[in-house]
Order: sequence, then C-alpha cells, then structure tokens
Amino acid sequence: MPDASPAKWHLAHTTWFFETFVLTEAAPGYRPFDPRFGYLFNSYYNSVGAQYPRPRRGVLTRPDLDEVRRYRARVDEQMEALLTAASKEDFESWWSVVEIGLHHEQQHQELLLTDIKHLFSCNPLEPAFHEPHDEPVSEPLPLNWHPYEGGVYWMGHDGSGFAYDCETPRHEVFQHPFEIASRLVTNGEFLAFIEDRGYERPELWLSEGWTVVNERAWKAPLYWRREDGRWRVFTLGGMKDVHPAEPVSHVSFFEADAYARWRGALLPRESAWEIAAADLPVEGNFVESERYHPAAAPADGSAGRPLQMFGDLWEWTASPFLPYPGYEPPAGALGEYNGKFMCNQFVLRGGSCASPRAHLRASYRNFFPPDARWQFTGIRLARMRS
Amino acid sequence: MPDASPAKWHLAHTTWFFETFVLTEAAPGYRPFDPRFGYLFNSYYNSVGAQYPRPRRGVLTRPDLDEVRRYRARVDEQMEALLTAASKEDFESWWSVVEIGLHHEQQHQELLLTDIKHLFSCNPLEPAFHEPHDEPVSEPLPLNWHPYEGGVYWMGHDGSGFAYDCETPRHEVFQHPFEIASRLVTNGEFLAFIEDRGYERPELWLSEGWTVVNERAWKAPLYWRREDGRWRVFTLGGMKDVHPAEPVSHVSFFEADAYARWRGALLPRESAWEIAAADLPVEGNFVESERYHPAAAPADGSAGRPLQMFGDLWEWTASPFLPYPGYEPPAGALGEYNGKFMCNQFVLRGGSCASPRAHLRASYRNFFPPDARWQFTGIRLARMRS
Amino acid sequence: MPDASPAKWHLAHTTWFFETFVLTEAAPGYRPFDPRFGYLFNSYYNSVGAQYPRPRRGVLTRPDLDEVRRYRARVDEQMEALLTAASKEDFESWWSVVEIGLHHEQQHQELLLTDIKHLFSCNPLEPAFHEPHDEPVSEPLPLNWHPYEGGVYWMGHDGSGFAYDCETPRHEVFQHPFEIASRLVTNGEFLAFIEDRGYERPELWLSEGWTVVNERAWKAPLYWRREDGRWRVFTLGGMKDVHPAEPVSHVSFFEADAYARWRGALLPRESAWEIAAADLPVEGNFVESERYHPAAAPADGSAGRPLQMFGDLWEWTASPFLPYPGYEPPAGALGEYNGKFMCNQFVLRGGSCASPRAHLRASYRNFFPPDARWQFTGIRLARMRS
Amino acid sequence: MPDASPAKWHLAHTTWFFETFVLTEAAPGYRPFDPRFGYLFNSYYNSVGAQYPRPRRGVLTRPDLDEVRRYRARVDEQMEALLTAASKEDFESWWSVVEIGLHHEQQHQELLLTDIKHLFSCNPLEPAFHEPHDEPVSEPLPLNWHPYEGGVYWMGHDGSGFAYDCETPRHEVFQHPFEIASRLVTNGEFLAFIEDRGYERPELWLSEGWTVVNERAWKAPLYWRREDGRWRVFTLGGMKDVHPAEPVSHVSFFEADAYARWRGALLPRESAWEIAAADLPVEGNFVESERYHPAAAPADGSAGRPLQMFGDLWEWTASPFLPYPGYEPPAGALGEYNGKFMCNQFVLRGGSCASPRAHLRASYRNFFPPDARWQFTGIRLARMRS
Repeated sequence: MPDASPAKWHLAHTTWFFETFVLTEAAPGYRPFDPRFGYLFNSYYNSVGAQYPRPRRGVLTRPDLDEVRRYRARVDEQMEALLTAASKEDFESWWSVVEIGLHHEQQHQELLLTDIKHLFSCNPLEPAFHEPHDEPVSEPLPLNWHPYEGGVYWMGHDGSGFAYDCETPRHEVFQHPFEIASRLVTNGEFLAFIEDRGYERPELWLSEGWTVVNERAWKAPLYWRREDGRWRVFTLGGMKDVHPAEPVSHVSFFEADAYARWRGALLPRESAWEIAAADLPVEGNFVESERYHPAAAPADGSAGRPLQMFGDLWEWTASPFLPYPGYEPPAGALGEYNGKFMCNQFVLRGGSCASPRAHLRASYRNFFPPDARWQFTGIRLARMRS
Repeated sequence: MPDASPAKWHLAHTTWFFETFVLTEAAPGYRPFDPRFGYLFNSYYNSVGAQYPRPRRGVLTRPDLDEVRRYRARVDEQMEALLTAASKEDFESWWSVVEIGLHHEQQHQELLLTDIKHLFSCNPLEPAFHEPHDEPVSEPLPLNWHPYEGGVYWMGHDGSGFAYDCETPRHEVFQHPFEIASRLVTNGEFLAFIEDRGYERPELWLSEGWTVVNERAWKAPLYWRREDGRWRVFTLGGMKDVHPAEPVSHVSFFEADAYARWRGALLPRESAWEIAAADLPVEGNFVESERYHPAAAPADGSAGRPLQMFGDLWEWTASPFLPYPGYEPPAGALGEYNGKFMCNQFVLRGGSCASPRAHLRASYRNFFPPDARWQFTGIRLARMRS
Repeated sequence: MPDASPAKWHLAHTTWFFETFVLTEAAPGYRPFDPRFGYLFNSYYNSVGAQYPRPRRGVLTRPDLDEVRRYRARVDEQMEALLTAASKEDFESWWSVVEIGLHHEQQHQELLLTDIKHLFSCNPLEPAFHEPHDEPVSEPLPLNWHPYEGGVYWMGHDGSGFAYDCETPRHEVFQHPFEIASRLVTNGEFLAFIEDRGYERPELWLSEGWTVVNERAWKAPLYWRREDGRWRVFTLGGMKDVHPAEPVSHVSFFEADAYARWRGALLPRESAWEIAAADLPVEGNFVESERYHPAAAPADGSAGRPLQMFGDLWEWTASPFLPYPGYEPPAGALGEYNGKFMCNQFVLRGGSCASPRAHLRASYRNFFPPDARWQFTGIRLARMRS
Repeated sequence: MPDASPAKWHLAHTTWFFETFVLTEAAPGYRPFDPRFGYLFNSYYNSVGAQYPRPRRGVLTRPDLDEVRRYRARVDEQMEALLTAASKEDFESWWSVVEIGLHHEQQHQELLLTDIKHLFSCNPLEPAFHEPHDEPVSEPLPLNWHPYEGGVYWMGHDGSGFAYDCETPRHEVFQHPFEIASRLVTNGEFLAFIEDRGYERPELWLSEGWTVVNERAWKAPLYWRREDGRWRVFTLGGMKDVHPAEPVSHVSFFEADAYARWRGALLPRESAWEIAAADLPVEGNFVESERYHPAAAPADGSAGRPLQMFGDLWEWTASPFLPYPGYEPPAGALGEYNGKFMCNQFVLRGGSCASPRAHLRASYRNFFPPDARWQFTGIRLARMRS
C-alpha cells in the first residue's frame, strides 16, 4: 500500500520537521542528529532536498526503533532549550513554525492509526490494535433534514487561533438554499445500496469511479468481508459484525457520490458544510475516546442541529480542493504544505474518531484523492431547497 | 495514443449516434444497417450496451472506408425521410435529440483534426494534412489587463438557442474583482519560461503535475522539437519554426498553471472568463478559416476588450468541471453525455482554430483531464484586483 | 498485439532488407528510395541503426500502400539490374545475402498470414481472409508410436543447399532411445484435456506457464470460442466448428507441455525430432495448398513413418533455442539474424500450412517464446523407450 | 524487491516445511502450532494449498520474531520426539523427507544472507551485517586454460549420498572438446569490459539482455557504485573499494554471457562444468569462513586444476535448467520442488561464499532466471578446443 508508512517512519518524520524547519533555521551551525535522516524522513518537500521514495519506506530496517526514540528525545530536548532561552522576539518568529509542527504531528498521529489499521488488515492473522469497547447496541435514528437559507456568506478562517494557509483568506461565496442531513449515513442504509446492486449499475457512478470499481473489483466498503453469508468488518479492535446503526466508514468519494445519487441526494459543497458547522461546538467522538471507531448517532436528541458534524468520520464534500480567492502559499518550503496538492483531490470536513479534538475547527479542510479509502471517511448527505 | 480514434471511426460513430438515438427510437421495427455496429461504434454509453475498447479502435480494418460511407449515406437518407414525413409533434419531440446529434458531430469534426494531427506527428515522415498558409510575420502585441468589478453575477446558459445540459441551470455566483489578459500567452513568452528552467523547478508545479512532467520527460509543449539549436513545431501543415508572436498551444493544464505561477498571475476561474466573454461577439479564428493553427493576435486594436477569447485556442480555466447548482442530467442514455465526467477534469472555454464557429457560445464548457495536450489548448492569464 | 505487424509493413520491410544489405553495400553512392525508410522498416538490426518501435507500426498511415508498392517495384528493378550486370565474382559474393533475403521474405509471407489472422480475430465482425474449402469430414486416426534407437547421432545442416547459420555446425549428440507419435495431437484429444480440467490443475503446468494461464485467463487454445454450448474456432476462412479430427493449433509451448504431462508423454527434444525427420520427404500441407488451416491426418497409411512431420503445424520441441557447439554468428549486421535470440525461446520444427514448402528442411529451426500462440503451432508427442 | 523475503519469514518457512511434510504426515491428528501459518509460510506448493503473496511478505508484522522462535522451538521439539520414538521402518520412511527438509534449510540459510544484503543495500544508511575481515591485498593471477577431451561422458548424481531429484538420472552426454578457465573472472577484468563500453554495445548482448540492460539502466554489476571517480561496492561488511583481484560478483547471466562474448570466449555448458569438477574436492570459500564475500584466487598454485570451482561464487553456465533424460519428479507436493521451474532459468554450479559446504557436490544444479543479480553469482569462462 504505497500511501501508508510504517509507525517508526511517522515518529521520525515529525521530529525531522522540527529539526529541519526550526532547529536548523534558528541555530547557526546546528549539527543534525544524523545528516542522512534529512533524506530518509523528508516526506515531500522538494525545496529542502531529495526524498527517499515513499513506497520503499517499509524496507528501512535501520535506524531501528530505539535509534528513532533517541532521535526524538534529542530533538525534543534541543527544542525545549531553544524556546526556553529565546528572546521574546525570537520566540515569536519561531512560534509560527513550531505551531505548524505541532499540528503536523497531530495529523501524523491520525495517520499512524490509519496506517496501522491498513497494515493489520493485510495480515491473515487479523491482529487487533486494542481491546474493543463493549458498546450497547442502539437502533438507528431516522434521517432528517436541516434547512439553510441561500445568499452571500463568508467562509474561511476568521483569524483567531491557528489555521492552515489553505483555510484563508476568509471570503464571500454565493450559497444556494440547501438542507443538510441530521446524521451520517449508516451501515444499514449503505447495505440497502449494496443489495440494490449499487456497485453494479454504471448509471450511478462517475465515469472514473466506474473504472475504479471494476478494476479493483470493489463490492463493499474497504474492510468489509463477507463471511458465511453475513458482513463482517475489520476494525482496530479486530473483526466484528457490521452494525446497522453505525456510520458507514472507509468509503471513497466515488462511493459516497454514487450512494448520494442512488438516494436522490447530493454531497454537500464545502461552503454548505461550513455554513452548517459554523456555530456548532467542536465536540464528538475523537481519538481521545480511545474507541478508534465511529459510533452510532446518539438517540438523545439533536436539539435542532445536525449530529456527528465533528468527529466519528471525515465527511466527503462535493468540492475539489482548490485555493480560496486571493490564496497565497507561505514563502519557502512550508509553501509546499498544502498548495501544491490543489488538483484532483476532494475536500473532507469535520475530523474523525482518529483525530485529536484540538486539531479541528469549522474551517478545517482535509483532502484526499477520490479513490482513497484507508482514512476514516464517511457520508453526509445534502440536498437543494427549491 | 489511447485517447485518439481513427478518422473512419469518427465518421461511423457520429452516424451511429443518429441511428441509435433517433431512428431506433422513432421507428418501431427499425432494422439497423449492421447490428454489430452498435458494439463497434458506441463510445461510452453504458445504458445502450457494451463498447468495443477504445484503445483497440485502430485494429478495425473492417468495415472499410467505403462501407462506412455507405452507412453514413443510408442513415442520412433515412433521417431525411423521417424528418420530412414527420408530424409537427413528432418533429418537435425528435428535434431535441437531432440537435444534440448535430452538435455532437461538430465536436467530432474537431476531434478528427486533433487526432489526425497526433497520428501524423507520430510518423517520422512528418506528413502534412494541408498546404500551410503563408502568413505575414507580425510582432507580438504587449499584454494588457482588462478589469472587472466584483459582486454577484449570473452565469450559465440563458435559455435562448441550443446548449448542453452542463451549461445549465443559469445561476448566481459571487465573483471577486479580477483582471483578464488582453490576449493569449505567446510562444515567445512561453519560451522565456522554458529558458528560465520552468520545466525543472518543482516549486512552480502542482504536485501531480510535477510527477507527470518527470515521468513523461516533458521539456516543452507537445509538438515542439529541438532541431539544430532552434525550436520547431509540428502542425497540420507540417513542421515549421516556432513563431514568437503566435499563441503557445498544445499545453496541458499543468503547464498553463505552472506558467501562470511563474509569471505571478493566475488562470481565470470559469465564472470570470464567462463574465468577460458575455458581451463579446463569437468571432475569431475557427475551423472555417482553414488555417488549422492559432494566429498571432491582430495588431489593429482591441477596442478596449480582450482579443482571441473565441477561436484560436481552448483556454484552460482554474475550474474543475463540476455540476452547476441544481444541475440534473437528462433522463436516459443522453444523461451520460456530460454528467459522468464531472471529476478530475478542468474546464476550457472559447473554442479553437479546429472548432466550427457555430458550435461556440459564451456559456460553452469544454473539459479535459489536466494532463491532456493533444487538443488545441492555450493559456489566458488573469489576476485578482485588490 | 505488440508482436504482429501490418501487412504493409511486411511488404516494405522485406524490400528494405534487399535495399540495405545488397543495394547499399554493392553500389557505392546508392541513393535509397527514401532515406527515412531505413528507420521505419528496420525490424531489429541494431548494427544498421535505430528502429521505429514495433508496437507503434500500426499508426503509420504514411507511406500508403501505393507508395510501398512503388518502393517494392523500384528495388526489384534495381536488384535485377545489379544481378544481371554483375561479374561472376560479384554475383557470388552478393548471392549469399540475396539468398538470405529470399528466405527472409518467405518467413514474412508466413507472418503476413498469421498477423492478418490475429488482426481479423480482434474484429467483432469476424471477417474472412478467403473462402474456406469444403473439406470432407474424416475420422481421427489412432495414435501410434514409432521407435528409434539410442546412441550418438549427427544433427544440423549437412552442407548442401541453403541453411540459416543457427542450423550449423553439424555436430554429434548423444540421443537416448525414444518413440515419436505417428501424427499431431487432435482437437478431440485436446478437448479431453480441457474437459478433465487441464487448464485448472497446477500440477500439470510449469510454474511460469501456470502464471500465464491465470493472468491471461486461458481456458482453451487461442481462437477457440465457446458459443451456445459448443466450441467454435476462428480461422482465415471465418468461424467454424472445432473439428475433432483436425490437429489442435495455436497452442503455446506451455499448453503443449502441460498436455504432454497430462497424457504421460513428453515433447520431443529437437535432436529426436530431427532424427525422425531426417529421411522423410519434405511434403505436406503447406501454404501452396491455399488451405491456410491444418488438415486431419490422411487415413491412407503412414507406410511405417510418422505423418504430418512437415507442414500443417509447427511442432513445439522440449528444446530451448541454443547455439550448436562451435556456432559462430556471421560477421556484421546479419549476425543479428538468429544468434541474439538464443535465450528464453523454444525450438519449433517442421513448418506449417502457412509456410512455403521450399522454405523447409529437416534441420530447420524456428523459435518462439513459450507463451506465443499466434503462429500455427501444434503438438507432437514423444516418449522415452526403456 | 519481490524475490527477497524477510529474515523472519525464512525462519518460519523452513519450520513450516517440517511441520507440513513430516509432522502432519506422520502423526495422525497432529494439531499445527497455528493453522493459519500454513497459508502465510507456504512458498509455492500448490498441492498443499494457497499461498500468501510473496511480494507482500514484508507487511507481516505479526507473528513477531518471538512468536516465530516459539514456533521453531516447538516444531524442533516435536521432530525430535517423533524421530527418537520412531520404529526403524518409520524412521526410514520419514528420513527421505527429513533429509530434503535439512537441505532445504541450508538453501534458506543462503537466501537469508542474500536477502539481508539486498535489503541493507536499499538503505541509504548502508548498514553492515558484520565486521569485515581485513584481508591482505593480493595481485590477480593470470588466467590459464585447462583442456578436456571430447566424447561420451556420464553426468548426474551417481547414487551415493543425498541429491535433489533434478540431479538424476545419471545419463550419457556427448561432450565436445573444451577448455575451462583456471579461475573466476576478476573485478579488474570486468572493469576493462565496462571501460570498453561493454554495457553500451548491443552486438555483445542477447536481445532480451539488451532490453533489460536498457530498461534498468545497468552500467555495472549490482552493488557497484561510482563515488568521486572510483568504483565502490556494497558488501555484507559495508561499502568498500572494488578490488581488482577479487572475482566479479552479482552479475546476471546476461552480463556473464556478454562478457564472455566480448572476450571471445564462452560460458561452459553444465556438462562441461561437471566433467571438470567431477574429481575435485569440495573445498573453498563457503559460509563457514564467515567472510560472506568472494576471495581472490590463491596464488599458491593450482596443481594443474581449475581454482574456485566450489565456493566463492555460483558460476553461470550456458545451459537452461532442463530435465535430464528420463527425469521423473517425485510424487506429491515435493514434486513441485524443482521440476516446475524447468523453463527460462539457467543452471549455476559450484556454490558460493554464502553456501554451507555440506550442501554442495559436483552434480549440484542451482538455477535462476537470466536477469537475477542478487545471488552471489560470478563468471567462469570456457572455450571450444578445435
């Protein structure tokens, strides 16, 4: 699986980020822990130098885990020394990069979980990452629709607190009247799509999605397996039955889009999603719950607002990942962080059960190619209001 | 080249369109010219049946050209008989499909030229399709900027005359203030990008574009060849020198985007392009000129409006090809005409020197994947107004 | 199909051979018909220069057929003039190359037929190359075994008449006692292998063959098609029923080898085949019969010798194509004719219904990779004598 | 590198061999250590069941090394118990398989070293497997030729002691008079080939080899690297200078063959090699030396016989791996051990510095595809005697 990396690599890469973008910049004459790590643990920053090929990260048996831990300890120590001794001015000039480094590490905490999940799923021994919770079985809630007015709205980061460059500038958009679903699409609902031969009907799919479905012989979401006539699913807690009330997860944009078409609905544009999320608290099933799995929508009322907007699963939007009007990537290597990926990827919103809660906000834009399935991704429906 | 088709196939496919979507529908008991042609000449309509694989169209030595001509003559004859004898009601109900069939044939007239150009370019004999015009050599015009106000605009087809489904519904958008370039980017300007090592600097490229540039070893636009220290270009009139005043053509979206970034400008969003084009006459260098090559912008003044907006070259926009708000594909097989391609493609506007003039309008949306270069595609720059 | 070439290309290539290896060598200052043809029509002679890529030969719409015919006429004329006017010495020095050129053209006459057969087979219209003969239906003959003694034998060309370099030098081999089958394996016999699930049982296959069978989903010989519960076969005379008494054709070495294993027999080594063929007349179903299809073994007695050794189908041997002891390729470009292919190919013997009779002899070695099926190839069984 | 496996996998696979082919067969009701290991650690035995895909062995983070060691300990224990308690008859019936299992494990001991070498070579940190010996630098010996008579010889295993099926039956061959080189080709000699542009001259290469050389951009043996104008080589002891007196290693058959052609010599057929080796003691630089690297030929005389025939490097022969006349694979799954690989592979003889000494003998046939380079492979020249 060329998109995933070993856990050890994630550990070293996030440390490399601080070493490269803070220590090396801040301390003239800084001597790196091992100069060869600059090649091994650079992910995609062309400005900083060449990169060891991503699909071959798995063959790096050296440095071993102990060495990587020493690397982390040393860099942590040096970062602490640097920031402690810094003048107020220096501190402020470094802080913006340190802050990105911290958020960057949060992203890799999530990737660490999704990559382990994928790795374990390839192993016929079906190892479990943790002891699964024993959740009470709930009934699926009915799906309702929340209406929003059309007109000119502001979207994008409003300037207080941290945000990535791609969330800016805040700008006006014209939004058509819409409704958004009260919760995520469930396994039970998605099963009806499968049983209606959803994976076999070309008229439901984008042309490129139809090609992918056939070439990869997709018949169900990633991690679903048919065993003895029933659907089972691989989770970080091992194999379990597919529960109808839980949100369907590990679907690609293509599947989300085909499902919406089958149901006579749409995926929300990211502007619609952000309008609906703007006033909601950032609460939900995040990594801190240690569930590592999406949960059924709570039955105890939505108080008139959509449920599960944050946490549980990243929600595919209908919007390609594009620059906002007036967007400028930062100067230097960190300009490669987001801007160069603004092509053939779709925006996801809201975070997942593998995201740290503090990492999320209403303006947050995640993005993946439309065929990606190994992240915790799900489906939120929308529709036009006439 | 898997995207291109033989001339004979285009001739048969456009006839198949009328046979399948008009004759077969209108005349109960209609017997097709050859029932096997339904498989051979169906391009991508899954609703109508399976399709002979596109990359293998080149091996169809049968039916031969004479047989295809007989096929065309027979279907033309039957179409004429049908429409002549039709009641007013029948005529009207069939007309909407006939009209699509005619516009469909115009599209294939353009593809016929671009596919022949590509085929001939692969032949070391460098055959010419026509005797090239002996054009007077002109000096490049300076590039100016035309400003437009921001605000809410209407875009999409306004309802009079023919338009494809994807140009509708007409709807409001919020457009930020912008400027648009007075003409297309010239070969001379693009050469400066090449000489500034534009194809070798990753910071100018989208990540996916950078991969493509390296995998395919792109060093210049398609059809440019370096011979004895100077740049030559393959055209439908054979090889000739690259002329600095002519618009640069046969560039991908990736190259257009990188060029704009290098120059500190942008590609226009399709809304901006349509706003700028809305009041312009549909005039320019179309296929009727029989030049089959873009021409330098005329020196005799622009009268305060951008030149070359129609004809010469399709202009890459910054906009992925997406459904307009409220878009509904038509019912039935013709619903596959445009809607299913709304993923990982970019919109091009304005038509080219290979397009029939009558085929174009301000709301017309063409689309190709970002790495496509074999169409007559060029670069129109834009920029934000502060 | 990357191994096949258009008919027009074969016509031009065989002419190019004479132009390059005779006219250009013999006549100082010779001006080629078109210097660019040297690139287009060179098949694989690195010593002579670069080659237009084989898989792209199909896109060469120019030169057209008329031009190729003019090319052939001009070169024929010049060859005739050269040889007529030549001194005895010159004539003799050129003759060895002219002779290779003539045998080379015979090989391409066969390839022309096999390539047309493959091309037509890809066309859903199933065009026929000729009106098929109306053959009387015969009963299959029983398969008998002809025994041969072991010991030291001589093999290879004996020096009289033309032979390719790879048939020399004549040399001694130690041959173990063996028996050879009285005729080719029939369709009926091969059908029993299919029905015994021969294509699904890994224990019958070489490891590399098993991979090929699965990757390409082979279920029967090339050109066999299952229609309405019976086996049909595509021939140069169009589709027809698989006849049980006709020899099974268009099988790969892998299929021949698996079939032999299934039947408890072997394929003959080429030494065994040559020993058995050494005293037989070169008679059989060759291209001159204009049948273009293998025929059932004649019932009128074998007079104590194996039937069908020449003509009908090339017979896969168990021998990789290797140099004979002391083999030296000729100096110069013609050294590339055979020698460089002595790796990962297997020897076939005896010629086929598409071979000119005059092209064959007992020492003749044809060779193809073990997965090749588009030639007229069949199965002759052998076994050890204890 | 799809041909290599992790060390852990080799450890488990060799244990699986005993569990599957001895314990499961011998003890009715035997309960395997973990039934899923049968899938994970089966290499290529179709008769025993499906196999986990070889290229994905690297993703098996479970079972971990401790678990594999427990597996080995348990199976060793059970094997010991079985053999200790066995009746003489049972012991004998099991012994032939146990013996194969032991030789099988020796083969994997060698693969373990070659796979680790390859894995480490992919790591930019260039880790070393062991502390390299500090060898005295010697001068290369001159290369002499040892002559042998032609005639009928016997080859193949003579029946005393263990041998693999493919070494039998012992049989007669006709061998032409030949000479064999007194030692392996050295780095210095191979460097002359490189400097004479050996990798750039198509006339020296087999056609398939020439394709491989160009597609993979080979410029030197595997593990050679050009650094600051001199050749360095990666070894299990880390990087070091290429020493001219050491044998050239990690070359493919294609390189060995091209080198021989360049030098006007041949590779020996396996019959010639075996004739030359038949009376030599099995002595040399084997894995027991713990050098893990080939050594320069000793200067202290060859006493009239070729040096380095055993140990140092596997020697490519000119012979494809084929069944000997009358060869029969064993019944059952062990029939898959060798027989099914008799296609498109070449025989190597003599063992290497990574082979256990007890594993070798004069009749031993190793085999690899002609493009394989990651084994310890070298070049022994031969030539015809006139």
